[in-house]
Amino acid sequence: MSFVTATYRVYDQKKDLHKKAESIALGLTIGSWTHLQALEKKQLEKHKGEVVEVIEEKSTDIANRLFGEERKTGLIKIAYPQANFSADLPAILTTIFGKLSLDGEIKLVDIDFTSDLEKAFPGPQFGIEGIRSQLQVYERPLVMSIFKGMIGKDMTEFKSQLADQLLGGVDLVKDDEILFDNPLTPFSDRVQAGSKIIKEVYEQTGEQKLYAVNLTGRTFDLKDKAKRAVEQGATALLFNVFAYGLDVLQALAEDPDIHVPIMAHPAVSGALTASPFYGISNKVLLGKLLRLAGADLVLFPSPYGSVAMEKSETIDIKQALTEERALKKAFPVPSAGIHPGLTPLLIQDFGIDSVINAGGGIHGHPGGARAGAKAFRDAVSGVLATQSLSDAAAKSPELAKALELWGSPT
Amino acid sequence: MSFVTATYRVYDQKKDLHKKAESIALGLTIGSWTHLQALEKKQLEKHKGEVVEVIEEKSTDIANRLFGEERKTGLIKIAYPQANFSADLPAILTTIFGKLSLDGEIKLVDIDFTSDLEKAFPGPQFGIEGIRSQLQVYERPLVMSIFKGMIGKDMTEFKSQLADQLLGGVDLVKDDEILFDNPLTPFSDRVQAGSKIIKEVYEQTGEQKLYAVNLTGRTFDLKDKAKRAVEQGATALLFNVFAYGLDVLQALAEDPDIHVPIMAHPAVSGALTASPFYGISNKVLLGKLLRLAGADLVLFPSPYGSVAMEKSETIDIKQALTEERALKKAFPVPSAGIHPGLTPLLIQDFGIDSVINAGGGIHGHPGGARAGAKAFRDAVSGVLATQSLSDAAAKSPELAKALELWGSPT
Ligand SMILES: [Mg+2]
Ligand SMILES: [Mg+2]
Repeated sequence: MSFVTATYRVYDQKKDLHKKAESIALGLTIGSWTHLQALEKKQLEKHKGEVVEVIEEKSTDIANRLFGEERKTGLIKIAYPQANFSADLPAILTTIFGKLSLDGEIKLVDIDFTSDLEKAFPGPQFGIEGIRSQLQVYERPLVMSIFKGMIGKDMTEFKSQLADQLLGGVDLVKDDEILFDNPLTPFSDRVQAGSKIIKEVYEQTGEQKLYAVNLTGRTFDLKDKAKRAVEQGATALLFNVFAYGLDVLQALAEDPDIHVPIMAHPAVSGALTASPFYGISNKVLLGKLLRLAGADLVLFPSPYGSVAMEKSETIDIKQALTEERALKKAFPVPSAGIHPGLTPLLIQDFGIDSVINAGGGIHGHPGGARAGAKAFRDAVSGVLATQSLSDAAAKSPELAKALELWGSPT
Repeated sequence: MSFVTATYRVYDQKKDLHKKAESIALGLTIGSWTHLQALEKKQLEKHKGEVVEVIEEKSTDIANRLFGEERKTGLIKIAYPQANFSADLPAILTTIFGKLSLDGEIKLVDIDFTSDLEKAFPGPQFGIEGIRSQLQVYERPLVMSIFKGMIGKDMTEFKSQLADQLLGGVDLVKDDEILFDNPLTPFSDRVQAGSKIIKEVYEQTGEQKLYAVNLTGRTFDLKDKAKRAVEQGATALLFNVFAYGLDVLQALAEDPDIHVPIMAHPAVSGALTASPFYGISNKVLLGKLLRLAGADLVLFPSPYGSVAMEKSETIDIKQALTEERALKKAFPVPSAGIHPGLTPLLIQDFGIDSVINAGGGIHGHPGGARAGAKAFRDAVSGVLATQSLSDAAAKSPELAKALELWGSPT
C-alpha cells in the first residue's frame, strides 16, 4: 500500500500524546473506529490513518516561556493511506495539514512518501547534474548574482547589468523577485535581450550562462507565457512558487515544452515556516516539497545575513534537496548577506553542490559588478585549491578589495 | 495614483520603528533613496514605497514572554505604488510580504487597495444577496451541514445523507474538504446525484437548496472540471483555496462559464495565520483577500468549538466579508463545534447575514440528520421571533432533544 507519512511536533495541553495521535489519525481519515460494526471495519480498514510513532520530547525553553503553562511536547507520526487522496499536492496538503493547521500548537515537521507515490511527482527536470552539464561546470559551486534595483529602470540598465555580471564570471543571473511584467522592462524583452547577451558572452568567453527571468502574471496564463519564453530563448525561469501554489510549479516542471531549469524563490514562505509552533518546517516546504514538485534550484535565506535562517534549518533544506532518492537532486542556493569572504564557510556548510548567490556582495564591490563577480570566482578557486583567502587574494586584486571591504569570518 | 497599503505588526529588536518602516518602504521598492542623484530621484519617485504611519504599541505579555528581551512593538503602514506590480494577487503578495515574510517577527495584519486597483478583482459572483435570491431565503441566517465520514463510503451513502440533510431543512450541504475524486464517490457522480436530489427535494418541499461539491485535482484541470460540473448541474463548489492559491480562486470566480457560488474552505490557512508574530492575519487572508478573489461563502473556525479561533478574529473576518464596498458581500460561515443551543449566540455575534454550519451538531442528533437539521431551523425561527430557546423547544421535539443533549450557553 501507498502512504504519505507526516510527522508533527505538538505541544499538547491535554498532555496525552497517544490520544492526540489517535484522534489525528482517525479524525483526518475515517472519523471514528471503535464504535464501528465488524463489516464496516472491514470496509474502512484500508482508509484508516495509522499512528506510526509517538516520541515524547523535552519541552523547550521557548515553549515554556510562550505558553506559560506545562504542555506535553513530542513528535507524532501518522501514515495516511493513499486510498484517501488523489496523487496531487493540494490533496495531500489538505489531508495531512488542512484542518489540522488550524488546531492549536502543531507544526508539520517532516513528510515521507512511499516510493510508488513519489513516482507520481516529477522532481527536478535537470537537477544538479543537468544544470552542470548545461553550464559545463563541474566540481565547484556555481556562482550566481541578482540584478540591483531594476524597478523604475529600463532595458538599457538591464542589458548593461546582465552583461557586467556575466562577464565577471557568474554562472547564473536571476531577476529580482519583485520585478514583474512592466512597461520599462517587459517580460519578453528581458527574455530576448537575455538570450542575446548570453550568446555574446559565450562567443567572448566560451562560458555557458543562465539567466532566470521572473515568470509572473495570472496562474492560468503561466504555461503559455513560459512556453513562449522558451521559444524566445529563455534559459531559466525564476518562480515565486509560494505566491502561486506548489502544484503550479509541478505543472510547469512537467510540461515538456517548458524545458528549462526552474529556480524557486522563497517569497511568502516565511508566513508558513517562521513560527516554531505553527505551520510547516523549512525542511518540508523548501526542501522536500519543492524537490518533489520540480524545482531545479531552491533559494533560501543563508544563515549568515541580516535576513537569516537558523543554520540547522538551512542544512535540513540542503539535505532534503540533495539526499539520494529516485528524484534528481536540486541545487541549494543559500542567499542574502553573501560576500566573497564567506566562500570558505559556504563551501564547508553547503558543499560543492551548491550555488553561491550574491546581490550586494557583487554590486557593492568598489570595482563594480564585474569585479564583484570575479572576486567570488577567485575566492571559489582559492578555497578549492585549499588556499587561504588571503593567499588567493594575493593574486586577485578584486578579491583583495572585497576582503578589505567586507572582511572574512575565518 | 493606485496603491496597496499594507499594515504590519512588528516586534523590533533594534527598537527603531521609523527606521524599520523606512527600510521596508525602500527595500521592497527601489532599494535606496538618499544617495540618488536628482535625475534618478525624479525617475524613481513614482516607484518609491511610502511610510504612511507608524504607531507604537504597548508590548504584549505574550511577546515579552516569548522573546525574553525588550522589543519595540508597533504597527507600520506602507503604501506600495501600483507602478511596481501587475494587478494580480501573486504579484501583490510577493511585493508586500514576499521577502518580508522571512524577516524576523513581522505579521501582515491589514491591507487596503485604492478603489481603482480593487476594480481589477472580481469579488463574489453572487455574494450574500445573490445566494439569498437563489435560495429564496431572506431575513434569516442560512443553515448548512457537512457530510459525515464519507471516506470509504459509496454513492448509496452519499445519496441518503444528502437527502436526509436537505429534507430536514438545511439550505446548503457541503462535501468534507478531505473527500477527493475517488472510485467510490467520483466527482461527476456526486455532481449528478446532487443535482437530481436537489430537484427532488424542491418538488417535495418547494425549497431551493445548494450542494457544494469539493473541486479537487490538478490546478490546470480545475477550470474545465468546474465547467463540466456546472453543465452537469452542480449548484455550488467547495474549494480548498489555500492548498492551491488565491489567484486560482479568482480565475474560477471570473470564468463566466463557472457561474455557481464558490465556498472557500480554510484548510491549510492555519499554517499562515496561527502565530501572533509571523504570517498573515485572519482578517486579511480569510476576510479581505478571499472576498477580493471571489469567494461567495467563507468557512472559518467558530469561536465556540474545540478547533476554535479567537472571537475577535472571527468578528474581523465577518467584518471584512460584509462591510460596504464596491465588491459584493460574502457570507461568513463560522464552523466547528456548532449545535442548536449556540444559535442565539451565533446570531448575536455574526448577525442574520451569516451561515450556521454544523457537522456533528446535525448528524449526532438522536433522531438522525433530518431531525438534526430541523432542530437548527426551529432554533433559528425561535431566535428571530425573540423567543427563548426553551420556549421554541416547547413546540419542537427535535430542538428539545438537541438542547437536552448539547445544552445551551445562554
Ligand atoms: Mg530579491
Ligand atoms: Mg471538514
